Amino acid sequence: MIAEKMKSMVAGSSAIRAMFEEGNRLAEIYGKENVYDFSLGNPNVAAPEAVKQAIRELLDEEDPVVLHGYTNSNSGYADVRETVASSLNGRFGTHFEGKNIVMTVGAAGGLNVILKSLINPGDEVIAFAPYFGEYRSYTNNYDGVLVEISPNTENFQPDLQEFEQKITPKTKAVIVNTPNNPTGVVYSEETIKRLAAIMEAKQKEYGTEIFLISDEPYRELVYDGAEVPYLTKYYANTVVGYSYSKSLSLPGERIGYLVIPDEVSDSGELLAAANVATRILGFVNAPTLQQKVVAKCINEKTDISFYDRNREALYNGLRECGFECIKPEGAFYLFVKSPVADEKEFCAAAKKYNILIVPGSSFACPGYVRLAYCVSYETIVNSLPKFKELAKEYERI
Amino acid sequence: MIAEKMKSMVAGSSAIRAMFEEGNRLAEIYGKENVYDFSLGNPNVAAPEAVKQAIRELLDEEDPVVLHGYTNSNSGYADVRETVASSLNGRFGTHFEGKNIVMTVGAAGGLNVILKSLINPGDEVIAFAPYFGEYRSYTNNYDGVLVEISPNTENFQPDLQEFEQKITPKTKAVIVNTPNNPTGVVYSEETIKRLAAIMEAKQKEYGTEIFLISDEPYRELVYDGAEVPYLTKYYANTVVGYSYSKSLSLPGERIGYLVIPDEVSDSGELLAAANVATRILGFVNAPTLQQKVVAKCINEKTDISFYDRNREALYNGLRECGFECIKPEGAFYLFVKSPVADEKEFCAAAKKYNILIVPGSSFACPGYVRLAYCVSYETIVNSLPKFKELAKEYERI
Repeated sequence: MIAEKMKSMVAGSSAIRAMFEEGNRLAEIYGKENVYDFSLGNPNVAAPEAVKQAIRELLDEEDPVVLHGYTNSNSGYADVRETVASSLNGRFGTHFEGKNIVMTVGAAGGLNVILKSLINPGDEVIAFAPYFGEYRSYTNNYDGVLVEISPNTENFQPDLQEFEQKITPKTKAVIVNTPNNPTGVVYSEETIKRLAAIMEAKQKEYGTEIFLISDEPYRELVYDGAEVPYLTKYYANTVVGYSYSKSLSLPGERIGYLVIPDEVSDSGELLAAANVATRILGFVNAPTLQQKVVAKCINEKTDISFYDRNREALYNGLRECGFECIKPEGAFYLFVKSPVADEKEFCAAAKKYNILIVPGSSFACPGYVRLAYCVSYETIVNSLPKFKELAKEYERI
Repeated sequence: MIAEKMKSMVAGSSAIRAMFEEGNRLAEIYGKENVYDFSLGNPNVAAPEAVKQAIRELLDEEDPVVLHGYTNSNSGYADVRETVASSLNGRFGTHFEGKNIVMTVGAAGGLNVILKSLINPGDEVIAFAPYFGEYRSYTNNYDGVLVEISPNTENFQPDLQEFEQKITPKTKAVIVNTPNNPTGVVYSEETIKRLAAIMEAKQKEYGTEIFLISDEPYRELVYDGAEVPYLTKYYANTVVGYSYSKSLSLPGERIGYLVIPDEVSDSGELLAAANVATRILGFVNAPTLQQKVVAKCINEKTDISFYDRNREALYNGLRECGFECIKPEGAFYLFVKSPVADEKEFCAAAKKYNILIVPGSSFACPGYVRLAYCVSYETIVNSLPKFKELAKEYERI
């Protein structure tokens, strides 16, 4: 009865729900504190006090008809868009104006808006494994075809050789996500320059436009002073999708933006299309109160010390247990090599210790598992003896 | 460069933007108070004080990690869904549970979610002219085909004879919008009963499931004690899409819900599909703070006296000028017969008096114009002498 396209998705989604319910079931039996749920990317850090303050001020100061009303443009409040543009210019030396910004219902909304704006049925969208599984759904929404580049498990930088081979005249977009979910890896400037050069050359070779879509909800979550290159500076046809979900701990509020720079081919037309797509996909506009909140909190710094402490504890703890993984430079995930080829078997084994982790297959990278360390520090500390027991099971292998 | 499907939409959207810019241009020349902009359905009534109070309480009382976090289910907070279900049961004698409610990014988000869940390419979706033009875009998003039923300009109840003829084995959904945008007409219980009987018979004849989608953002905006039948009680395969945009004056906040009753065929599967569609379309979940706000304001009564005063003033004023229109029982629109066949010409003539109105062609009903009276009372009072002058132009015809 439901749409054909939805059937497999509903089936897949049941598996995730089953995992979620399993977590609840375990929590009921063993107590929540004895379940080590590393499965979800839901920040456990409270939004900064400045968010609360901003909301209170807005309620006191703004006309509610404006504060909660439709924005004049579906792309958002003009003043908010100006504020976002100025902030980016100050931080990255870019030259955006308010008109280059489209406020969106989170990064997920932004990615849907830009794909709706760009993709014709059969167009190809490239993603580098491991990647956030929803890219496939977003691409399918517009009858695009997701083309996967195999993971480079040496350092999880993208495999640019395979990338170059897989670009075709039908390639319309390339999605990169750095800092990366699920690996926590930051793509180096060297990587970005090579990627851009390949795309430039292919655009010329085929006489096409190929868009680089930078999905960057984790931009602010970097450690040890790692630098995340701002991609619009390396490649003209770049569109940035940002979210405040992680940087301000507002994932449920659905607030983010797209940047469509003037350097993009026919940028005026693409901006107009994004504005229309925002409307007809049913977003209409990004939630208005939260638009004003993020503008007021534009200089708010993300306190990453919480995540950094978790990162160190979990990374070092797992290494001591003998597990292999790259030390993440950003985001709040560890991507750990499964001690057995079938990582789903490993996930099942972990569950016996009340440890919930996600198989790498969900990110097109089997043989690995993802741990989201946006949990309480106690969860990490208390989980480590369990990981030790889990590791012992594999010493005999 | 942009997607083919978007090209005509961007072109159409430019026309609307041109009108908006024209309004701004006129306001600059003549002063905002001398421009009578009846073009937009953006409520001019402030959200009730209870909304402000609810937000303040939520900031004080709720854990920000929960208040601004992802909801456990993409369909929304369990407690909010229970509250909505109970409220509907109390008001309409229905038997919904929390699981029957999917919190959505406004009604526009809800309609996209249910169409994504239901529509296969080529499936037909029926709408009764005059109808909100976005239904066509929403249907196109999923490669459905919008089938239009001609307007019944006698009383703007749907033409059920043509409806019966146009239902085919490919008909998957029928959208009704009562109280109606743009006419303000409430579909009578008699209409609904006949509509339901026709749909039941056609389901049997074709062995198909045909879904009645009730888009009801204006449910609370009714005058003179008019009753709006609750459609799930008349037809089993009914899905309701609601929005708080008008009832709580929160259009920019994007908060509403879908009701998918147990009586719907395979309702469990459809609920699961709606949950997944919410996620993959990029909504993820309805904005969380506003979910909690509407639950706290669930018993808030909409003060319609403001709109009622506008309705009386504008309806009576226009009738005195000699214009013809049905007195609306709901919503905040008047649908006025154009004194000339080409209503766009009439809109252009109105603009000479700084009156901005929308041609009925935008609602698949040429020969009429829509006036949104969700403006200040002063705008209405001051516009009436201008309407009188405008009317005089047509006395000679």
